[in-house]
Amino acid sequence: MSIKAVYKASPTSDSLSAARTAKYNRSVKVSEAGEFELIDKLASILKQGQKADPKLLVGIGDDCAAWRVGDQVLLATTDTMVAGVHFLPSAQLRDVGWKIVAVNVSDITAMGGIPNYGLITLGLPPGTPVGSVEELYEGINGACNAYNIVIAGGDVVRVEQFFVTLALTGEATVGESGQPALMTRAAAKPGDEIAITGYLGDSAAGLRVLAQGAPVGTNATLLIQAHVQPQPKVEAGQAAVKAGVRCGIDISDGLLQDVGRICRASNVGALLYADKIPLSPALKQTFPKDAIALATSGGEDYELALVAPHAVLEQLSNSAEIPITIVGKVVSEHPGKVRLLSADGRELDIALHGWDHLRQA
Amino acid sequence: MSIKAVYKASPTSDSLSAARTAKYNRSVKVSEAGEFELIDKLASILKQGQKADPKLLVGIGDDCAAWRVGDQVLLATTDTMVAGVHFLPSAQLRDVGWKIVAVNVSDITAMGGIPNYGLITLGLPPGTPVGSVEELYEGINGACNAYNIVIAGGDVVRVEQFFVTLALTGEATVGESGQPALMTRAAAKPGDEIAITGYLGDSAAGLRVLAQGAPVGTNATLLIQAHVQPQPKVEAGQAAVKAGVRCGIDISDGLLQDVGRICRASNVGALLYADKIPLSPALKQTFPKDAIALATSGGEDYELALVAPHAVLEQLSNSAEIPITIVGKVVSEHPGKVRLLSADGRELDIALHGWDHLRQA
Repeated sequence: MSIKAVYKASPTSDSLSAARTAKYNRSVKVSEAGEFELIDKLASILKQGQKADPKLLVGIGDDCAAWRVGDQVLLATTDTMVAGVHFLPSAQLRDVGWKIVAVNVSDITAMGGIPNYGLITLGLPPGTPVGSVEELYEGINGACNAYNIVIAGGDVVRVEQFFVTLALTGEATVGESGQPALMTRAAAKPGDEIAITGYLGDSAAGLRVLAQGAPVGTNATLLIQAHVQPQPKVEAGQAAVKAGVRCGIDISDGLLQDVGRICRASNVGALLYADKIPLSPALKQTFPKDAIALATSGGEDYELALVAPHAVLEQLSNSAEIPITIVGKVVSEHPGKVRLLSADGRELDIALHGWDHLRQA
Repeated sequence: MSIKAVYKASPTSDSLSAARTAKYNRSVKVSEAGEFELIDKLASILKQGQKADPKLLVGIGDDCAAWRVGDQVLLATTDTMVAGVHFLPSAQLRDVGWKIVAVNVSDITAMGGIPNYGLITLGLPPGTPVGSVEELYEGINGACNAYNIVIAGGDVVRVEQFFVTLALTGEATVGESGQPALMTRAAAKPGDEIAITGYLGDSAAGLRVLAQGAPVGTNATLLIQAHVQPQPKVEAGQAAVKAGVRCGIDISDGLLQDVGRICRASNVGALLYADKIPLSPALKQTFPKDAIALATSGGEDYELALVAPHAVLEQLSNSAEIPITIVGKVVSEHPGKVRLLSADGRELDIALHGWDHLRQA
């Protein structure tokens, strides 16, 4: 349920691994503790004294939480965008409004669900012009109309740094047996293949085009559009669970990092084939040298990574009008690790540290 | 779904009414537009192009949103606490953790529901010690255990100003007919009486004790406890809907302000009798002169105001072991307005401007 702060430089591999191996203790700063370690620790605190809950199907650590409500299964997720962290100060607030909805929809999509109701929390500096907030809400409204979402409530608070939070619910697909058809991160098995929807890297390329200024031409427009108005793949997620896919994630922090999350949750390894990763003509023409790096660790694609046996993915590909591309496979070796391979089988070392949401750039 | 920023001085009546009458336009700052006007405008933007939704029972503008999920009714609310706005910099984070759960539970309670699952968003400055976050989570865990809540997910973001948001769901009471038994703000009718649970003013008094420093004695301890560890009235809310109460609100921003919300939503007026408002011995002994002001506009009580015909409140009072006190009545005159009367029928003018969440102190 977390999104990438793309416009800050990612931390270096060195500083990251140093932090990862640093001893976790109470006096260390959150920026040094590492996001994963902190979340693990906090999750363990939340378990103290809690009773087993048979209604809870998926808790902390996946794209959404999932629990039973009567004979249905509810999905819930939340994501926040902070000014100066998750979007450029120059960003159009209408785009930010679209995006805060889209990124949450993408989480519901990643579990195979259909989004429905949202609560918005708005953190506003007192000097914010009312017109800016209206623009934000026009963007939110546009995305809500596109994805059939109703904003049913929220909260407004005074802060120094503008932020917007959406908590979004959805309904999971429930089979005739009464069992929910969910995609989780923890269901990958060795031998499964890894497919993705759409192209990767366009959003990160669009951000780069924006940062370079004065973009012109069709390619620039396409890439910027991918960045400012991502289109989460609700139909693909639905088709996937109906075809029997039971493992997936949305690609928000970069393919390598997000497939890594599946590997850790499922205790498996993964191989990805660099030459199989689908790149848009716009990306290849605009950034020919960096296309594969942008596609594997750029982030904010909001496409889906789907993990299933070959036959299931083939059936999905045939039955639904959803273009998917097989880009890798699940292996038992090196559990928790993703290896990116070139066409001739060499392991590639593309900047793949991804984004730590608490580290300073 | 919003809580009061109690430790900042409230705006003066003069500055408030000037702002209320200022023309709303897009260039005005949110601090000058007024919270109500802004929220009305944003809610109207969110309605553009939206289809009618028969599943949505309660949308923006009540303590919770409510919608049907199969044969059940889900409640959802969210509240945020910001460092330096909603709690003192010197506050114990364990107390903040308890309180962010309690204030959201209070919203679910105000609709007559039972809380169940939550998502936490944590805004952390990079320099925050891990131990502080752990203390916050210990407080959250304590309240979750007390109210049978499971934290099922969330998000962590990097910010300059610490905040914590909880989005909390609950289940509404559904009658044998399949119709939900909800308390809303919009169901008050002239002739109804207004009852409250518990004492009012202790929390605001506790804050004042804390601000004065070096508190000693039983009274100080009781008042501080009311402030730092409020106990939302889940059983009272349940008993109320079962007894047939269909209008209520939780008292988070002060009795006068919150009953005013009922008056505006129901288009009725209200009379409150100052001498009927229950004051704790601790409050009366500690702040004898200001007790009634603290009880009517102090805020953060997290008691319930229940509005129903006399017979319904009497039945509630008899059937449940819930002490309630009738403090006023609903009238048709002066719709939207709350008048506080002395024992001899004079209208009292106690500072009743309440808190505007966007205005600067």
